Amino acid sequence: MTWELPIIFICSAGSLVFAWGLARWVLGKDTGTPAMKAISDAIKEGAEAFMRRQNRTILFLAALFAAILFIGYGFVRSHHDFDPVSSSMTLASWITLSFVFGALCSVFAGYIGMWVSIRANIRTASAARSSLNDALRIALRGGAVSGLLVVAMSLLGVAGLYALVNAVSHVEVTKIPLLIVGYGFGASFVALFAQVGGGIYTKAADVGADLVGKVEAGIPEDDPRNPAVIADLVGDNVGDCAGRGADLFESTAAENIGAMILGASLASYAGKAGMGFSAGIVGVMLFPLVARAFGIIASIVGIMSVKMDREEKMDPMQALNRGYYIAVVLAMAAFGGTSYWLLNSPAAPQAWWHFFLCGVLGVLTSVAFVYITQYYTEYKYRPVQSIAEASKTGPATNIIAGIGVGLECTWMPALVMGAALLGSYYLGRASGLPHAGLFGTAVATMGMLATAAYILAMDTFGPITDNAGGIVEMSQQPEDIRRKTDRLDSVGNTTKALTKGYAIGSAGLAAFLLFQAYMDEVVQYAGLGEGFAFRVDLSKPVVFVGALLGAMLVFLFSAMCIRAVGSAAQAIIQEVRRQYAKLTRVNDIIQFPADFKPDYGSCVDIVTKSALQKMVAPGLLVVLSPIAVGLTFKVFINPADKLIAAEAVAGMLMVGTIVGILMALFLNNSGGAWDNAKKYIETGAHGGKYLTGADGKKTKNPTHGAAVVGDTVGDPFKDTAGPSLHVLIKLLSTITLVLAPLFL
Amino acid sequence: MTWELPIIFICSAGSLVFAWGLARWVLGKDTGTPAMKAISDAIKEGAEAFMRRQNRTILFLAALFAAILFIGYGFVRSHHDFDPVSSSMTLASWITLSFVFGALCSVFAGYIGMWVSIRANIRTASAARSSLNDALRIALRGGAVSGLLVVAMSLLGVAGLYALVNAVSHVEVTKIPLLIVGYGFGASFVALFAQVGGGIYTKAADVGADLVGKVEAGIPEDDPRNPAVIADLVGDNVGDCAGRGADLFESTAAENIGAMILGASLASYAGKAGMGFSAGIVGVMLFPLVARAFGIIASIVGIMSVKMDREEKMDPMQALNRGYYIAVVLAMAAFGGTSYWLLNSPAAPQAWWHFFLCGVLGVLTSVAFVYITQYYTEYKYRPVQSIAEASKTGPATNIIAGIGVGLECTWMPALVMGAALLGSYYLGRASGLPHAGLFGTAVATMGMLATAAYILAMDTFGPITDNAGGIVEMSQQPEDIRRKTDRLDSVGNTTKALTKGYAIGSAGLAAFLLFQAYMDEVVQYAGLGEGFAFRVDLSKPVVFVGALLGAMLVFLFSAMCIRAVGSAAQAIIQEVRRQYAKLTRVNDIIQFPADFKPDYGSCVDIVTKSALQKMVAPGLLVVLSPIAVGLTFKVFINPADKLIAAEAVAGMLMVGTIVGILMALFLNNSGGAWDNAKKYIETGAHGGKYLTGADGKKTKNPTHGAAVVGDTVGDPFKDTAGPSLHVLIKLLSTITLVLAPLFL
Repeated sequence: MTWELPIIFICSAGSLVFAWGLARWVLGKDTGTPAMKAISDAIKEGAEAFMRRQNRTILFLAALFAAILFIGYGFVRSHHDFDPVSSSMTLASWITLSFVFGALCSVFAGYIGMWVSIRANIRTASAARSSLNDALRIALRGGAVSGLLVVAMSLLGVAGLYALVNAVSHVEVTKIPLLIVGYGFGASFVALFAQVGGGIYTKAADVGADLVGKVEAGIPEDDPRNPAVIADLVGDNVGDCAGRGADLFESTAAENIGAMILGASLASYAGKAGMGFSAGIVGVMLFPLVARAFGIIASIVGIMSVKMDREEKMDPMQALNRGYYIAVVLAMAAFGGTSYWLLNSPAAPQAWWHFFLCGVLGVLTSVAFVYITQYYTEYKYRPVQSIAEASKTGPATNIIAGIGVGLECTWMPALVMGAALLGSYYLGRASGLPHAGLFGTAVATMGMLATAAYILAMDTFGPITDNAGGIVEMSQQPEDIRRKTDRLDSVGNTTKALTKGYAIGSAGLAAFLLFQAYMDEVVQYAGLGEGFAFRVDLSKPVVFVGALLGAMLVFLFSAMCIRAVGSAAQAIIQEVRRQYAKLTRVNDIIQFPADFKPDYGSCVDIVTKSALQKMVAPGLLVVLSPIAVGLTFKVFINPADKLIAAEAVAGMLMVGTIVGILMALFLNNSGGAWDNAKKYIETGAHGGKYLTGADGKKTKNPTHGAAVVGDTVGDPFKDTAGPSLHVLIKLLSTITLVLAPLFL
Repeated sequence: MTWELPIIFICSAGSLVFAWGLARWVLGKDTGTPAMKAISDAIKEGAEAFMRRQNRTILFLAALFAAILFIGYGFVRSHHDFDPVSSSMTLASWITLSFVFGALCSVFAGYIGMWVSIRANIRTASAARSSLNDALRIALRGGAVSGLLVVAMSLLGVAGLYALVNAVSHVEVTKIPLLIVGYGFGASFVALFAQVGGGIYTKAADVGADLVGKVEAGIPEDDPRNPAVIADLVGDNVGDCAGRGADLFESTAAENIGAMILGASLASYAGKAGMGFSAGIVGVMLFPLVARAFGIIASIVGIMSVKMDREEKMDPMQALNRGYYIAVVLAMAAFGGTSYWLLNSPAAPQAWWHFFLCGVLGVLTSVAFVYITQYYTEYKYRPVQSIAEASKTGPATNIIAGIGVGLECTWMPALVMGAALLGSYYLGRASGLPHAGLFGTAVATMGMLATAAYILAMDTFGPITDNAGGIVEMSQQPEDIRRKTDRLDSVGNTTKALTKGYAIGSAGLAAFLLFQAYMDEVVQYAGLGEGFAFRVDLSKPVVFVGALLGAMLVFLFSAMCIRAVGSAAQAIIQEVRRQYAKLTRVNDIIQFPADFKPDYGSCVDIVTKSALQKMVAPGLLVVLSPIAVGLTFKVFINPADKLIAAEAVAGMLMVGTIVGILMALFLNNSGGAWDNAKKYIETGAHGGKYLTGADGKKTKNPTHGAAVVGDTVGDPFKDTAGPSLHVLIKLLSTITLVLAPLFL
């Protein structure tokens, strides 16, 4: 008996049980004062209403797409001898089934993550009244529920489908991944709409609330007098947690399947060259899943070891970092052991540790991404300070400086990613096995994603602490409690920025792996045999045009996301202005009557409707573009070039990915830098928030006003378009994987 | 005797004489009142001082690079049997000579163009006092001096170098283009620095002048009380005329040489297949030059036919369009005739008209680009109106809307460019000749560039009328004269935007031609023979990383340009604020004393220094990056893949071009749209420039203020980074063409 599948099932099922335990632990905590509860309930209600409506729309679209997929594979495409199964109908059934299963799991993972986090927020807020350590742990463990659930479910889904196909059909094991690629695509499909919809929701509310609240009315963030404030807090949950959960769910799912395809092809090459692995083809193919399973356990240990020192004076970020390092070290140790176990080829004794080094390279890459993100988005460093400095001459120079920083920040990640790709490729080549370069890049991606559960826990920590801060602020708790939640909130902002850097880095590495899986698949489906070299030759006009369209797709998609936020935010602004219209102003500052009660519900309604309506077009654009290119460019197929349409799609995919990565870096980091430039000024730099005149009168500091403009512009950049581009990149890969046979 | 070279020399020399005549005609016109002359002299002085210093810097850098080129080819690279000439030293000499010659011609063309335009501006202003028709003709003919000079010199240079090499050496004629590629590179080298330096100058001055003038001080554009106004007017000349002149000079030069390389290779393929052209290999190779020569004559006729109707009621744009259509029709007729003459193959009788249709497709593409640009940048249409609408909720939503429009506007040009490339490729393939697809795309480019001289005349018309308007404004001429120059100025803004669309379209088509020339060259230099297929396979990690770096280069370069403008503008703002600090303000509006005399000189100085200092880094980045990639990636060369470094450079070049085109569209069109959104509000939309309160007091309209922020952000986008990217795209192509042998 082989141990791979049992280990995978035990670890992932165990993690789900553990997540359930964590959720119970979090839910058992105190829920604070009635005032806090009222606010938390309002958030919960808004978030659940939105999620319900959003999931209904997404599931409808997914069902539609599943039907098209089934018809396309089952009836339109005719059966070929070299198909992995014996009939069109069987192929269609497996692909559609895995698509539907992936979509359902992704919806479920996103929903549960949000369900816990909208309950963890008030418990974090309440705990902050007594102990910062407790608050930190509640927020992190609340986040961990989401993190563990996402990663374990994605693993369980892939392994379960694999085992199912293996049990009920007679397919050659190495071809099973071709049947279950739909799982990753189903997950991406849901992730895209969830991230776009949630991203539009969160930023439309945030931009609207900021512009009228902070700038026009001069009231602080999360002030209860702002009618858009509840919508803003709801947005943190539906955009940041649910969206990111679905995003990382599909990252790990797609990457697992892609790596399985490459592992199977490596092992079969090696076998033919007489250099077979001791663990067999199945062992190599399941290597990614086993490594991931151990990674989850490592992440659990890391999460449980996070705590503050006794006096609570340490930086909470330091506590989180310590947990992360523990998780990384354990995960790497397990990675090394698994490499030795499953990637051992007696004929190439040095192979296993070459692959292990690829994994280490992946981890180092993720660390580099984290440091680069910090440099470009924290106010200790030159970039953010230059934006703050530029704010002195008004909003226009603030914007110019921020866009400059955003465009500039792409250079280091591009170099690091290039070095990681080439490094792992050449490490793989040096392993002594034939065709092992690409598997090397795949292993680097696995290394990077080994601690995905921990990273996702830190990411969801962000919206939980953000919400906790909002609840404390709105329920008007004493200053020292606010200071505690502010500390956690600021750490949450950092973790959110860092995980975005991590997500984009892993998307970049994973994409290269998925390209190769796509190319492998095209060759297999075209029945061209393993020796055939499928190229993506940009110098062919058809491929070049595919590439041009891929790059354009990124621009157009970003435009649609950004414009959606802009127009939804305008609706919010008009609504808040309407509610404020009758209040009196002194010296341009609104004088709120003591009994002022804003209408939160109207803002929640407006933004829910807009987000649901506006998420459809960008989502469909991404899903339909590669299909349109692949099918249209079939007219260029000729006997000398049978794969030209598939090649054009590959050009689209690869260049779309390159541009998507750079555009996401631009959007994420310029947004983060603007945000922190504003915060830097709020710490007192360049005059702070208010200026005091010679007569002692307080006036708004125009430098701060200029920085708020930049912060607002950055909102849809960093929280709508940027993270949605991560999903776009991966969706392009998974959709082409699933639809490849249709382009032949 | 063959007629090709005589025709080329007669047409281009004749055009130079004609340009000289036009210049004399313009200079013979009246120079207006002493007040106008004083302003014009200040502009002239500032512009000439900057150009002198800028040219000194550029020529120094060019000399340095020429030395490196000579050493690299003459001493570092060893001679190969298949080199086009018999020794390294000869190769080095020709390449360096043509580089130096190209650089000198480009400097000269830029300088003379500006020399005429800073003299045409006052004559246009003066003529506007009596007749709009006269003013229009002076401005257009002043612009035409530049247009004719640039295109004719570029043609004369290429043809002259060709004739020179042919006369003094024994090189096979088809290899001559390989020796003179340096000409295009020399021209690009100068164009890049001229465009970046001029672009930084013009926008730093403009942004600075606008922010303190219009926004803070509330004085109109071009108001003599603004200390930065002279620097702003100088900027129009050094950025818009000199920069664009150098840009189009190199477009035509590089495209001519690239098309010659492809023509030679097509003709030799056809000859081997027994389908030789009646005009011989030389005839096909010189086809691009002959077509260009006739295109210049067509442009001259078009330019001379521009006039207003008697009552001067027609839209001046209509007069310019009529001239353009005349030029296009004549150029296409000549193109058809030349195709019939030089591209006639008795064995493929339908070939010539297939190529003619490719040329027509090129013209249609340029027309499509012009219409798309209009749609996205004119305030009659939805995009600009949506930005104006978004300004109602402040600068942040204005910026978000503008960035949305800019990112969105890339989709139609990408589709049109893709269709043009594929259409001309398949037309070429259908010609009946072997390997004729790529030549088809080259001919489409020639068609597009046939009327380059006319387009450039219209482009330079822009800064001349802009300056004329400034002179009329500053010398406080009566309202009805201002209205005339305003009409011309607004047409000038349109022509500037349109020619940018044209430039990016032609850069895109030309780039594909230059890729192929590069690949042809690599195969020739590597001695691999004509049958060898050099591919640019993106699925190789090394090539993929090259592509990633190419895309990143575009982001980083744009960042450097934009940041340079931002920081230079801040220096201007501080200086103007210093000069305004002592003036009293009533109701936030500065009260200027009657005798207020600003210090123009200090602003001119500040911006001259900054522009010269900040143009060096982005320029060197573009020049050195492909070299660094080409040389570094030589470590990956292995016996199975000897061309891997050259292939990685090709990946960098192609993906850099794709991203460069899209980024340039984004920057140019968002900038244009913001500009016109502001102008739209100034026509009275959304309240106009000032609001009148219930008490009759005039206050600034915040909607207009928000639109001014967008306009200012757009300045470095559309006039610094955007146009510099056009040059970047072409420089990448020419530098790789020149340095290809070093990457082998």
